[in-house]
Parts: sequence; C-alpha cells; structure tokens
Amino acid sequence: MLRVTYQELFDALVRVLLKLGFEPERGRLCAQLFADTTRDGVYSHGLNRFPRFVAMIRNGSIDIHAKPELVTGSGPLERWDGKIGPGNLNAHHCMDRTIALAREHGMGCVALANTNHWMRGGSYGWQAADAGMIGICWTNTLPNLPPWGAADPRVGNNPLVIAVPRADGHVVLDMAMSQFSYGTLASYRMRGELLPMDGGFDSNGQLTRVPGDIEDSNRPLPIGFWKGSGLH
Amino acid sequence: MLRVTYQELFDALVRVLLKLGFEPERGRLCAQLFADTTRDGVYSHGLNRFPRFVAMIRNGSIDIHAKPELVTGSGPLERWDGKIGPGNLNAHHCMDRTIALAREHGMGCVALANTNHWMRGGSYGWQAADAGMIGICWTNTLPNLPPWGAADPRVGNNPLVIAVPRADGHVVLDMAMSQFSYGTLASYRMRGELLPMDGGFDSNGQLTRVPGDIEDSNRPLPIGFWKGSGLH
Repeated sequence: MLRVTYQELFDALVRVLLKLGFEPERGRLCAQLFADTTRDGVYSHGLNRFPRFVAMIRNGSIDIHAKPELVTGSGPLERWDGKIGPGNLNAHHCMDRTIALAREHGMGCVALANTNHWMRGGSYGWQAADAGMIGICWTNTLPNLPPWGAADPRVGNNPLVIAVPRADGHVVLDMAMSQFSYGTLASYRMRGELLPMDGGFDSNGQLTRVPGDIEDSNRPLPIGFWKGSGLH
Repeated sequence: MLRVTYQELFDALVRVLLKLGFEPERGRLCAQLFADTTRDGVYSHGLNRFPRFVAMIRNGSIDIHAKPELVTGSGPLERWDGKIGPGNLNAHHCMDRTIALAREHGMGCVALANTNHWMRGGSYGWQAADAGMIGICWTNTLPNLPPWGAADPRVGNNPLVIAVPRADGHVVLDMAMSQFSYGTLASYRMRGELLPMDGGFDSNGQLTRVPGDIEDSNRPLPIGFWKGSGLH
C-alpha cells in the first residue's frame, strides 16, 4: 500500500494535464476535481478513472480546449453546449452558471449537452452547497440497465445528486440508479472480490455476485436497500 | 362488486362535502381530486381515504374554511401557510401558484407548511404537466420508516413526484419511499392478502409479508426493485 499526500497527487495530475496541453487554470481545476474525488474515497470516479480520461483525450473523444457555449437562455433557465470538452470542467462551469442564475433570480436551471463524463456527480453538489445553495443534479448516460422485468439494457443508471448546505457540514447524496455503480463493479473486480449481495444478472439471466459478469451483461439491478433508504 | 360511474362518485362526494359546510367551488375541487384518484385506481388515496378525511374534519383536525396565506416570497420562491386547511386544496392551490411563478420567472418553487395530508401526490404532478410544465413535488410525513440498518422509525416514507408533459400522454412518477406505501399495505390488509414479497419487519425484527404487522411496527423496507427502476 502506497500512501501519497493530497498535494503530491494534485501536483502529479497537474503535470500530466499540462503536458497534454491544458491551459494552466483549467488543468489545475481538472486536477483538483480528480484529486478531491480521490481524497473522498470515490476512487472509481477519481484516480482510477484518470487513465481512461487521458486515453479519451489522446484518441480525440475529449477536446481539452473546448469551452462550453451558451445556446439559449431565458430568465433562470439556460442551455449550454459542451462542445465535447472535458466533462468535469463543463459540469463545473455549468454549476457556476446555475449558482449565478440562482443568485440573480432566486432559482437557476442549466442544461448541458455535447459533453463528456462528468466524473463524480457529487462534486457539483458540493459546489452548490459550498455556495450556500441547495443543488439537484442529474445526467443521462448510455443505456446500461434493463427496465424492471426486462432483459435488454434500455435505460441508464443515471446518477442523482441532492445537496443541502448546512453550517455543521453539508448533506450530499450522490448515487447511481443501479445498486452498484459501474465504478463500484470495477472496483470490486479489480480487488478480485465478489459483491456483498447479488448486484445484477449475468448474460444467462442468473442473479450473480460476480462484478465482471454484470459489467459484461449490462444488467445490474436497480437501486434498493441502503440506496433506497438514502432517498428518505 | 358494485360499479359506479365517475359522475355518480363525484356527485356523491360533492353532496357530502357541501353538507359538511364546504363552499361550493372548493367542495367541487376537493371531490374532483378524490374522484380522479379513485378513477385512476389509487383507491388508497382516493375513496378509501375519504372517511378518514371526513372524520378529521369532524374532529377539528382539518379546517375546511381555511385558505392558504402567503408568508413571504422573493422572485420565483414563495412560502405559504396552509392554516391547517384541507391538504389537497392547499396543495392544489400551491401548485397553481408554482405554475404561475414559472410562467412569470421561468421556474417556480413553493413551500407549504401547516397543512394536512395532500392525498395522492401525483395529482399535483398531473396538474403541472397539464399546464405544460415539468413538476417535481415532495412532502414530509411522520417518521414511519427506519433508516437503513436501524430499528426505530426516524425518517418518513415521503413521496416523490416527477411529472413530464408530453403530447402523447404525460409521464408521471408518483411513489412513496417505502417499497409498499402505507396506503398499499392497508389495501392488502383489507383484501386479506399477503404482500407479494417481504415488505418490512414485524415488531420482532423479522421480515414479513403480513401487511398489518408492518403497519404496527412502522418498519417498512425502503424502495427497491420496481420502484428503484422507476427512477431511471
């Protein structure tokens, strides 16, 4: 087990991002979002996902120079085009806009299209709560979960984020709509562990605790148990 | 099995409400909300709950003449005092206000205190969708569900309503945060049926399919399975 400080992790991520061509300020914010997520223990959407993020930059799926553009707006509502830029920078920018809209209008709502994976959705809940605002965030994803009773993945396990600011520490709910997120499935698989309970169906339609079999079938179970309880 | 038309049901409910002293317009709206809910098959929050509604009027828990009053407002945000009036009329009024605020500001958010049971939460989702608006509604309730892993009921099975207008028929999600709502538990109990699967714990901490035992223990399970899937 190797332990590194937050600063070492942050500095290393910044170095990689600057080498890839990020502008300094955007590279630092991007590194901070990855480092904060890792510090909070959500490795699946932090450091563990960073190599894939770099690969997507290298293969052209992510345009590191693209900045979100306003498409249209009316009062507290705005639509933005992410121009296929880095998903976490796009999401962070749009939460900033939402906070500004809420400051001006009392509420704010921003929709963002043409973007990439926003990594940990909770980051933008924390961002809202740190600004003293209640934040609610959704995103769509690929069809990676079957509707109840069906076999084919037709809906997404889209995350839901609800953040409420409190002086004694914010309350931030951040969860995928599958009992185990794909990030969590990958974490279990990489540790060589079985899930603590059935997490979905394998490709033969049998319930299974083997994370890789669920990743292959795209048939995780929807939320329930502790995650159902999280919504109360 | 006795079948009555919607109009017969509506007229009968209006007669009872007017006899209790409702002003005609408010009595008709109240009867319509109960009748619509019953027509849609949600008996637990329609006709089956009407006798309890009448009893609460008779014992003074509901003040049929009370109308909601604006406490404070700022832009798209308003807080209203329900003055312990009929819960469905208060909720309907506040969704009307929310729709008006959204028309004016682009979004609207109304909080309502000092009210009674709003009956079927989905009614106010349909109301928003019929006005061409996306509607999201929550309410609190009594502590009637234990947090995950705990034995004492400390959180509520508060309903969540999400409504999206569509020309081909609105999509309205309306669900309690317990796998079986208390209304559904009562429906099974009154039909003398067991639940199709474990719905909570009895007072001895054993999982059970007996609806009355869960009503007694206040320990229903949180949502999962088809209800977890409903959030996708």
